[in-house]
Amino acid sequence: MNKNTATLLISAPDRKGLVATIADFLLSHNANIVHADQHQDSEANLFLMRVEWDMTDFSPTKETFQAAFSPVAKQYEMQWNLRFSAQPLRMAIMVSQYEHCLSDLLHRYRIGELACEIPLIISNHENCRALAEFNDIPFYHTPMVKEKKAEIEAYQLKLLEEHQIDFVVMARYMQILSPDFIATYPNRIINIHHSFLPAFDGAKPYHRAHARGVKLIGATAHYATSDLDEGPIIEQEVMRISHRDSVEDLIKKGRDLEKIVLSRAVRWHLDSRILSYQNRTVVFD
Amino acid sequence: MNKNTATLLISAPDRKGLVATIADFLLSHNANIVHADQHQDSEANLFLMRVEWDMTDFSPTKETFQAAFSPVAKQYEMQWNLRFSAQPLRMAIMVSQYEHCLSDLLHRYRIGELACEIPLIISNHENCRALAEFNDIPFYHTPMVKEKKAEIEAYQLKLLEEHQIDFVVMARYMQILSPDFIATYPNRIINIHHSFLPAFDGAKPYHRAHARGVKLIGATAHYATSDLDEGPIIEQEVMRISHRDSVEDLIKKGRDLEKIVLSRAVRWHLDSRILSYQNRTVVFD
Amino acid sequence: MNKNTATLLISAPDRKGLVATIADFLLSHNANIVHADQHQDSEANLFLMRVEWDMTDFSPTKETFQAAFSPVAKQYEMQWNLRFSAQPLRMAIMVSQYEHCLSDLLHRYRIGELACEIPLIISNHENCRALAEFNDIPFYHTPMVKEKKAEIEAYQLKLLEEHQIDFVVMARYMQILSPDFIATYPNRIINIHHSFLPAFDGAKPYHRAHARGVKLIGATAHYATSDLDEGPIIEQEVMRISHRDSVEDLIKKGRDLEKIVLSRAVRWHLDSRILSYQNRTVVFD
Amino acid sequence: MNKNTATLLISAPDRKGLVATIADFLLSHNANIVHADQHQDSEANLFLMRVEWDMTDFSPTKETFQAAFSPVAKQYEMQWNLRFSAQPLRMAIMVSQYEHCLSDLLHRYRIGELACEIPLIISNHENCRALAEFNDIPFYHTPMVKEKKAEIEAYQLKLLEEHQIDFVVMARYMQILSPDFIATYPNRIINIHHSFLPAFDGAKPYHRAHARGVKLIGATAHYATSDLDEGPIIEQEVMRISHRDSVEDLIKKGRDLEKIVLSRAVRWHLDSRILSYQNRTVVFD
Repeated sequence: MNKNTATLLISAPDRKGLVATIADFLLSHNANIVHADQHQDSEANLFLMRVEWDMTDFSPTKETFQAAFSPVAKQYEMQWNLRFSAQPLRMAIMVSQYEHCLSDLLHRYRIGELACEIPLIISNHENCRALAEFNDIPFYHTPMVKEKKAEIEAYQLKLLEEHQIDFVVMARYMQILSPDFIATYPNRIINIHHSFLPAFDGAKPYHRAHARGVKLIGATAHYATSDLDEGPIIEQEVMRISHRDSVEDLIKKGRDLEKIVLSRAVRWHLDSRILSYQNRTVVFD
Repeated sequence: MNKNTATLLISAPDRKGLVATIADFLLSHNANIVHADQHQDSEANLFLMRVEWDMTDFSPTKETFQAAFSPVAKQYEMQWNLRFSAQPLRMAIMVSQYEHCLSDLLHRYRIGELACEIPLIISNHENCRALAEFNDIPFYHTPMVKEKKAEIEAYQLKLLEEHQIDFVVMARYMQILSPDFIATYPNRIINIHHSFLPAFDGAKPYHRAHARGVKLIGATAHYATSDLDEGPIIEQEVMRISHRDSVEDLIKKGRDLEKIVLSRAVRWHLDSRILSYQNRTVVFD
Repeated sequence: MNKNTATLLISAPDRKGLVATIADFLLSHNANIVHADQHQDSEANLFLMRVEWDMTDFSPTKETFQAAFSPVAKQYEMQWNLRFSAQPLRMAIMVSQYEHCLSDLLHRYRIGELACEIPLIISNHENCRALAEFNDIPFYHTPMVKEKKAEIEAYQLKLLEEHQIDFVVMARYMQILSPDFIATYPNRIINIHHSFLPAFDGAKPYHRAHARGVKLIGATAHYATSDLDEGPIIEQEVMRISHRDSVEDLIKKGRDLEKIVLSRAVRWHLDSRILSYQNRTVVFD
Repeated sequence: MNKNTATLLISAPDRKGLVATIADFLLSHNANIVHADQHQDSEANLFLMRVEWDMTDFSPTKETFQAAFSPVAKQYEMQWNLRFSAQPLRMAIMVSQYEHCLSDLLHRYRIGELACEIPLIISNHENCRALAEFNDIPFYHTPMVKEKKAEIEAYQLKLLEEHQIDFVVMARYMQILSPDFIATYPNRIINIHHSFLPAFDGAKPYHRAHARGVKLIGATAHYATSDLDEGPIIEQEVMRISHRDSVEDLIKKGRDLEKIVLSRAVRWHLDSRILSYQNRTVVFD
């Protein structure tokens, strides 16, 4: 994403001529394609595509692109989304007490691995404030009180809106967001769950993994939906454990999984690599 | 297991002096230890040990060992099991139509990777007969008829008994064994399930994995218990998949997982590496 | 590859309009694309593409396709290769004494995992004959005598030619092929090396891995070139080992790696997924 | 390591009675063993053991232990090392410009994952100072000038000595330490190399991995010796890459490997899990 590029994500009912139409459109505008990948889900009869071009020879605005591309899109019933690398997404991080995912994301941000802006961090605890401040990111403490959950969420949503947040990363934020909150950012809230979903969804996955005697533990990044831990899976990874490992060891080892899995999901989201449909994701590589 | 060795598996309530007592016992009999490993489960207050010695200087029979070791075992409330590498276990394989696990196990057997005898193969289908015969192993066809399940299982158990079978490997045997059958071989029936348990237990795991959109598929070898897919896990492995993979691709890729996971479990069982307690396993390495 | 499809592999100097041109060509012939993937190597200024279409609506012969596509290919300086799933490749297997890779490939062939024909197996030893015959594949014993190497290779090449072999798999064939032999099948001889190349190229890699104290062992499938173990890498995989593992354990564990890595490379070659350039490969997924 | 424990590492020529002798010694002192593991290298005729006990019932000082254990150790020609969890090791970190490993280690230190003290960080660059200060760790800037290397190293060694450093972690310190420096801390300097050794030892491993077209990249933690990248390997890990990945992508992906591999090696060193012999390591689990 160092170059000045535009990335177009498209999904449409699959039919002949889609690739030719899109390629012809881009060629007619003199676009220099630097990456293109497509996928056809024959069961769902769906065509999905990601195409990225260098802006040097074709540099539309969202408006001029829309005007030019709409007729094509309409004819093929495409849903599409355009992003410019020069306009990085604005990402909010929500976190509770465990700071490993936050610390990992902020480090990647600091060394330029994540091409985004982070206008704010929201937490129901105070302990991550120092880390936020070290990275010069405004930190908002929104302590959770059960009876005031609606009110608190309203305040959080207001913060997100004021900071023009594009998407939210729950970096081990240990509160369950209300369906209304989630509906505000469809496919734009990334959560990390500390198990290999669908195994051990819900509470205390490491304890249950230990009790069941599994030989691998996992972590799963997914888009949050109103069904807890049931949203479209973006990435998963596992790690071998042994009979020597206590629950505490699983928690410790699992942190490494959580950091890696969440950071990949965030990077792919930033790079417009993810298309979500039928509660599943395509991740273009 | 090329050497002529004896392997002792011990479990006992953990307390001081266990290692010293066992080590002293073996030293007093002039045993030359070639491998020893132990584990303490502090939660369960359990001590588990595997010790293997060269039979050159200490070559008891089961009877003479029992006579000598019993007082020690009694004092420390040990449960123990002794095996001699010179008396390989007798393994039965049960299989249905998919022959990949069977083919894999037989190849390993043929090239000396599995130190066991295979007196028979039992199948509810005919198609694996050629493979059995190529490997000179008697093949028994026991077609399954729902109404006659008890009768058929009785016949299968009679076959196992007649062939003095020590343990049974279900190499994708697609019938559910009755609790009575399983109770005849406690911790001695190894099953392979084609998912990363506890996810997708039961029927059609690859179909459900595909529907859920997971990014990794798995396989699990476990000791069969009367609770389907709930027995102690011996080994698990996973493999990355992508949005490109259809259910058929998962089935194809999964075969490699199943073969590897099942063969490891079988080898470890043959090498007396596995101790099972509280529906979990310790696998000594 | 169950469907009746055609697969086109293309490489060309990268320039604007390539995708549009190819897509337009296929659309103008009414081809129903079922899979397309492309890659641009910006350093090498190379465009590489794989496109597969259902033959129902566009079913050229090699000759009619050539006639139609040549002008396009010429204009863009494309190198291209067309294959029809209805005409499976003819694969020869060369093997020495270790039969695990051969056994694995033949099993996959038998259950329909490898869409090819296997007209013959060539070996410098006799011991794999039974396995070949069990699978009804002609077996040619070509014992190697140093002084007669040229003569023996000439005979082997004659066998390959007579059987109209498309490509050769060295399934642990422990002889070094002469440059002339290799030049006869450029990018069409797949070899498996039992290390993670470039580490431990040459002889006795497991012994050297053990001596060096590595924590993972590997296997590498590559196209054979006249530089031993230096050809384009198709696939690699690794496995964890520990201080407990002797050289014999590495050899045993490594067999699983070799089988999996080689079988993947063979499947990808059969599926026309591999493009080779500058001693590297693109493997379309 | 939360409990107050002592850990004893032993290596000795293998012979009968070693386990019994050590177990008896500990029992006679009323030690409550919480972890024991041993390994026999039959080729090297070496016995290696790690045993950890709860200090509640047996709490020697180094001196009292030495006095009691020496006769036993002498008789069996043991080399041994004793450590107390209550006296955490003092670790120095050396780093250059890349801060990802440093940042990772400091985060783990901050959340209590690494049971050590970090009295100082030494760098030949200034850019990691902020990170050091955020974590309240003294930062020494020792810019490298080729002609003054001996002088600079002398100063660095003086710093290490003044801070009573037990071992040194080179967290991507891009200078080659002199043999004299290394000899001061034998088996006590942990280095991270950004390749799967022995492949791509020396300079620019990611560039060379890319050029060779490997399908996996790796990282290796090892004890530094006077032979560059030839010291005993502690840990290795790999990650899959594809033809899509540029050298920059490898560098980015490799950072995750480097962090994980180095942090494991550091943790194992802190936990006295590593025994080194014949340029190899045993890592007790």
